[in-house]
Amino acid sequence: MKIDVLPYYGKQTDNHLYNTTVIVVDVLRATTCMICALNGGADKIVPTVDAGDAVAIAGRLGQRECVLGGERGGIKISGFDLGNSPKEYLGRAVKNKTVIVSTTNGTGAIHSVRSADMVMLGAMINRTAVAKAAAARGDDVLIVCAGTEHQPSADDLCTAGAIIDAMHYYADFAEGDLSDMALICEKLYADMRDGSFDIKKTFHCARLLRLGFEEDVDFCFEEDATDTVPVYRDGIIQKL
Amino acid sequence: MKIDVLPYYGKQTDNHLYNTTVIVVDVLRATTCMICALNGGADKIVPTVDAGDAVAIAGRLGQRECVLGGERGGIKISGFDLGNSPKEYLGRAVKNKTVIVSTTNGTGAIHSVRSADMVMLGAMINRTAVAKAAAARGDDVLIVCAGTEHQPSADDLCTAGAIIDAMHYYADFAEGDLSDMALICEKLYADMRDGSFDIKKTFHCARLLRLGFEEDVDFCFEEDATDTVPVYRDGIIQKL
Repeated sequence: MKIDVLPYYGKQTDNHLYNTTVIVVDVLRATTCMICALNGGADKIVPTVDAGDAVAIAGRLGQRECVLGGERGGIKISGFDLGNSPKEYLGRAVKNKTVIVSTTNGTGAIHSVRSADMVMLGAMINRTAVAKAAAARGDDVLIVCAGTEHQPSADDLCTAGAIIDAMHYYADFAEGDLSDMALICEKLYADMRDGSFDIKKTFHCARLLRLGFEEDVDFCFEEDATDTVPVYRDGIIQKL
Repeated sequence: MKIDVLPYYGKQTDNHLYNTTVIVVDVLRATTCMICALNGGADKIVPTVDAGDAVAIAGRLGQRECVLGGERGGIKISGFDLGNSPKEYLGRAVKNKTVIVSTTNGTGAIHSVRSADMVMLGAMINRTAVAKAAAARGDDVLIVCAGTEHQPSADDLCTAGAIIDAMHYYADFAEGDLSDMALICEKLYADMRDGSFDIKKTFHCARLLRLGFEEDVDFCFEEDATDTVPVYRDGIIQKL
């Protein structure tokens, strides 16, 4: 069982997807929000790359059925109901609704792997649950980091490392099963845990802190807060 | 002055090249070999992506003028004079010759950045020299790792970290000047130095050790053995 990490999503991922369990990670904050939305009782989530598409789908469903969420550059999209703070997605704002979400990086990453057999969403808050669910399938695992504007983002790479760390409890790995990027992410996560790598100084995290989202960042880095594993299939995201 | 690291080369680099000093790294073993060839007295190096192109150029120049070097999958290309072991490039095999080189990843990485203003070649053996030369230009620096078959390779990322580590002596960085990938590479190099990250277990390095190239690996990871900084310009590589 091989584990690989794609440091940021792109068109080049198609040849990695055959017979592979994909875990998409956008820890700050899209995949964390989506986990929260399912925990908050959302009926389903529809991720769209384009914000206009989100509005169009909402128009077809009607306002009572759905809620619009998303951000660009960290800021809520004008006219949308919700931004990209996990706590917005926990309450009755989403209960029994179809949540239509468009974010800068996360929804693009999800769409980029839509031809995979199985796509799960991962974050720190469900790192052990998603690791266990992926290991149970037995296929090779590819963790696709959303990244930040087509650059690797340390927060996603640390989260990938945290998921790989948890997988050791549920799968046996031979020497060479972990790709170099997987080994590096695992080490980076250990460095973050022992305080020798400061995630708060990295680009995307520092930007969110400057924008005033410290509470969000702390929430997103809390480990194993939930067992929810979202799965993306046929254009929608629901609980496994 | 910003520092970024591209974990493996690709077509997406063109938008990074404007007003940028590029350092191409393929530490195991292409850029190490090229530094050795210039130290061995080679007149110039011509990197080609395609092995057939290398042969065609050699045919036009004539056998007395040039020497053919390169590998595929770590093994010398059939009919070529030299493989990809640095020590082959140090002796009189290359003296006053045009060395035409084609390797699996390194020459492709060099070609991918040919539209940049300044392209230097980096490795462990010249890490401080290349850091100093790049810092002296004052432009932003992009370290392009060759990677291994379009995957990130830990050996190149560690070397990028070693070059960034050396740059701190020659340039001042503000908070945020180092991209996430640059910060991660710097940390990975520190982890390799203190023994907490074992580079010999990573994919490309382990493969070379299995193929019997232990002496090469040790040679390639020796730091600051030379002041030679190769520069790629107008299709050829010569000393700065």
